[in-house]
Amino acid sequence: MDVTSERAWSAIEAVRAKAMEVGAWSNIAVVDAGANLIAFLRMDNAMLGSGDVAIKKARTAALFQMTTEALGGLSQPGQPLHGIEATNGGLVLSGGGAPIRDGNGDVIGGVGVSGSAVEVDTVLAAAGAAAVSAMAPARAA
Amino acid sequence: MDVTSERAWSAIEAVRAKAMEVGAWSNIAVVDAGANLIAFLRMDNAMLGSGDVAIKKARTAALFQMTTEALGGLSQPGQPLHGIEATNGGLVLSGGGAPIRDGNGDVIGGVGVSGSAVEVDTVLAAAGAAAVSAMAPARAA
Amino acid sequence: MDVTSERAWSAIEAVRAKAMEVGAWSNIAVVDAGANLIAFLRMDNAMLGSGDVAIKKARTAALFQMTTEALGGLSQPGQPLHGIEATNGGLVLSGGGAPIRDGNGDVIGGVGVSGSAVEVDTVLAAAGAAAVSAMAPARAA
Amino acid sequence: MDVTSERAWSAIEAVRAKAMEVGAWSNIAVVDAGANLIAFLRMDNAMLGSGDVAIKKARTAALFQMTTEALGGLSQPGQPLHGIEATNGGLVLSGGGAPIRDGNGDVIGGVGVSGSAVEVDTVLAAAGAAAVSAMAPARAA
Repeated sequence: MDVTSERAWSAIEAVRAKAMEVGAWSNIAVVDAGANLIAFLRMDNAMLGSGDVAIKKARTAALFQMTTEALGGLSQPGQPLHGIEATNGGLVLSGGGAPIRDGNGDVIGGVGVSGSAVEVDTVLAAAGAAAVSAMAPARAA
Repeated sequence: MDVTSERAWSAIEAVRAKAMEVGAWSNIAVVDAGANLIAFLRMDNAMLGSGDVAIKKARTAALFQMTTEALGGLSQPGQPLHGIEATNGGLVLSGGGAPIRDGNGDVIGGVGVSGSAVEVDTVLAAAGAAAVSAMAPARAA
Repeated sequence: MDVTSERAWSAIEAVRAKAMEVGAWSNIAVVDAGANLIAFLRMDNAMLGSGDVAIKKARTAALFQMTTEALGGLSQPGQPLHGIEATNGGLVLSGGGAPIRDGNGDVIGGVGVSGSAVEVDTVLAAAGAAAVSAMAPARAA
Repeated sequence: MDVTSERAWSAIEAVRAKAMEVGAWSNIAVVDAGANLIAFLRMDNAMLGSGDVAIKKARTAALFQMTTEALGGLSQPGQPLHGIEATNGGLVLSGGGAPIRDGNGDVIGGVGVSGSAVEVDTVLAAAGAAAVSAMAPARAA
C-alpha cells in the first residue's frame, strides 16, 4: 500500500495531538517510499530551523529504512557510516525520524518530527508512523 | 497578523476542496511572511515534480508581494525583470502563486499550487489566499 | 517588535566599535526573525571566508533560538543533534552567533560575527544582540 | 585602490538617502573586486526577495565590469550571452547593478540596488557607485 495524502495527514494529526498533550511545538513531515514530501505542518511557536530538520528526518528514515537514531548510531566517529549525513542532500541522524511500514513490514514512507528534546521528537515520530500503519491492512500475498 | 498553522491548513483545505470540484490533482504549499514553509500537501495522483514547484510559487509570491503570473509578466525577454528566476534559490514565474494579505493589505505569506494547467493552478492559489484573508480581521491601527 | 534596519545597523556599529577596541577584524551579519539578511559588514582586513560564516551564524541563532555555541554543544558526537549542520542550507556550530530577543524574551532575529578567535566572536555577537535588545521596549501585553 | 568598508558603507548611505528622497524602499549591496560582499542593507519595507537580487546585481556588475542592464542587453534571446544568468551561482540582468571604478577607470567592485522600478534601481545604483568613485583618488601611475 501507499502513504496516501489522507494517511499522511492522519499521521500529522496524530503527532500534533500528542505534541499538544505533552506541550511540544513541533514541525512534522511525512514522505512517501520515494522519500518525496507528501505533507508538512509547522505548529505555531515551533522552531523555524526545525522545519528542514523534520523533512530531512522523514527522508532519512525512508531512504535507509530505519529510524534516524538507529542510523545515527551507525554514523558516530569510528562507526561504519560516519559522514553519511553529507549524502542525499543532507541527512539527519538524531532521533525523530521513523520509517512507516505496511502490514507486511515493508517500508512505505517516513515521518519526521523536530522542535523538542530528541526523546520527545522520537516518541512523536513513532506515534505518527504507527498511526499510518494502523490504517494499512496487510496486502494479500 | 501572522499565518498561523490553523490558517495555513485552512488554505490547504480550501484549495483541496476546490481542486476536487474541478478534478485537479494538486500540490499545495503555504509559507509565512519570511517565505518559510508552514504547511504542504500533495494530493493523491498529483505530479511528483510539482511539489517543489508549488513551494517555490508560494515563496515567490511572498518574496515579491505579487502573484507569480504578475512577476512572470515582468520577466519576459525584453522586460525589466528578465532572468530573475535565478535568484532566491529559484523562483517560479508561471501562475499558481498568490500572496496572502491581511485586512490591512499587508503581505503576510504566500500560497503556491501546482500540478494542473496554469489557469487552474492560478484560480486555486487565489482561492487559498482568499481563505486565509477571510480569517484575518484588520488590526486596530 | 521587529529588527528594523536602524536597529540592525546599530548592532553592526556596536560590534564594530567593540572589535576595534580589542583589535579584531570581523564580518558582522544581522538577520530578522525569518532568518533573512537585513545588514552585513565586512571590516577591512577581515578574513574573506568568514563572511559566509557570519551570515550562517546569524541564521543559525535565529533559526534555533539559541547561541551557536549552545547548539554546538548539543551537536557533538554522541549528542542528540549531531550532524544538524547539514540542514537549513548549512549551519555553523561554533561561537559567534547570538539570538536577538525583544523585551518579552521573544527571538526577533540573530547576530553573527566571524573572523577572530571563537571566544572573541562570541563576545562580539553577544554585544551586537544586546545593542538591539537595549533599543526594544517590551510590547504592552 | 580598494573598496574599503568605509567606502562601501558610504555607498549604502548615499543610496539610502537618495531612495528616501524618491520614496523607494531598497535593498542595497556592495561587493569588492573579487565580487565578495562587503556591505548590505535592507531598508524597512523593502521587498524580501529583492535582497538576493541586490547582492546578485552587485556581483554581476563586478564580475563582468559593466552595468547589469548592459549585460542584460547582450543576453536577450538571439544575443551572444543568452543564458549567462545561470552561471556564477546566478546573475541578474536587469538594471540596478553598477560597477565601481577608481580614478583610473579600473573596476574595483560593484553596487546592487533592488526593490523599486528598474529605472529607479538603476539611478540609485549609479549614485552608489559614484559615491565611492568620488572618494577615490587616482593612483599615481
